[in-house]
Amino acid sequence: MRANGPLDAETILSATEDVLRRYGPAKATVVDVGKELGVSHAAVYKHFPSKAALRDAVSRRWLNRDRDALAAIASDTEIPPPRRLRSWLVALLAAKRAKAHDEPELFAAYQLLVTGNSAAAIDHVADLLGQLEAVLADGMADGSFRRADPAETARAVFTATTRFHHPGLAGSWTQPGIEHELDVVCALLLDGLR
Amino acid sequence: MRANGPLDAETILSATEDVLRRYGPAKATVVDVGKELGVSHAAVYKHFPSKAALRDAVSRRWLNRDRDALAAIASDTEIPPPRRLRSWLVALLAAKRAKAHDEPELFAAYQLLVTGNSAAAIDHVADLLGQLEAVLADGMADGSFRRADPAETARAVFTATTRFHHPGLAGSWTQPGIEHELDVVCALLLDGLR
Repeated sequence: MRANGPLDAETILSATEDVLRRYGPAKATVVDVGKELGVSHAAVYKHFPSKAALRDAVSRRWLNRDRDALAAIASDTEIPPPRRLRSWLVALLAAKRAKAHDEPELFAAYQLLVTGNSAAAIDHVADLLGQLEAVLADGMADGSFRRADPAETARAVFTATTRFHHPGLAGSWTQPGIEHELDVVCALLLDGLR
Repeated sequence: MRANGPLDAETILSATEDVLRRYGPAKATVVDVGKELGVSHAAVYKHFPSKAALRDAVSRRWLNRDRDALAAIASDTEIPPPRRLRSWLVALLAAKRAKAHDEPELFAAYQLLVTGNSAAAIDHVADLLGQLEAVLADGMADGSFRRADPAETARAVFTATTRFHHPGLAGSWTQPGIEHELDVVCALLLDGLR
């Protein structure tokens, strides 16, 4: 139940996260969110036109929590671009794995968005690609990486590391040796970028 | 219903494939396989000790149909190793996509094996890694690829192409542009191997 005050989008999103944590994405309903807030589901629909829009917004907010930590690595020009690329990929795996492990219901909600090609999932990937592109462009500028189209190269690196960030493969992120696996793939990719 | 004759493992596996195609892996039972053959399920259990063993054997046979075509590419020493590596990866995607599209029920049975880390799935990956390793070793021997541990390099290349062969990602293999995506990843990997 919320504290008194006007019902804003942020309050609804926090309540939706709680409801998703409790019931999981298959069972959680907008009525549950309304109950959590002590309002009707119609009041929720005033802010989010559909259950899909609400799910999209809650996943977007949840995904953005990692985005800023990753962006800080991507833009840290103190670290040489090859080492920065590797750190970023290691941090991406760590962040995704923590999300899958610590908040399985919210992760499951996100998996549904990915399967459905939702705007939240597409924008999240675009965000990550933008960060990667910045690291690659820095490396091309300072001569650590061979000159090429940074956007296309970012997509190639992201695709080549699918095993370490695609939500459909989350079940295998706790396998022993996955860090070493990422290390070997990074070394091969860095050799290709030089 | 089978023609008369002794009940052998091969006959049971063909019947199991038919039953899986008809009912899918969630619903197909050993009793269905027995009915298909006009025998009791006990007769089936004489050849395969459990439903899991039967499912493993049928997937193994089904997967091996592609293995030989891929092995022919991997061992074709007329093709220079870099081009051979690329052809092999393109053929792998084509074979996996055809299986997912043409035989969705058998593909679903295979997905269950992968999720369960079954021996059939592990052996299939080991087969593919062995083929990749042979191409890489040829390339290291003739100077097309830099010298490194061929087995570890094979694993790195296989991991970096997860997006194009992991059964958990089959839903995205029909996306337009996937061939171009593979092409760009191949180019990056080949640059890393040289």
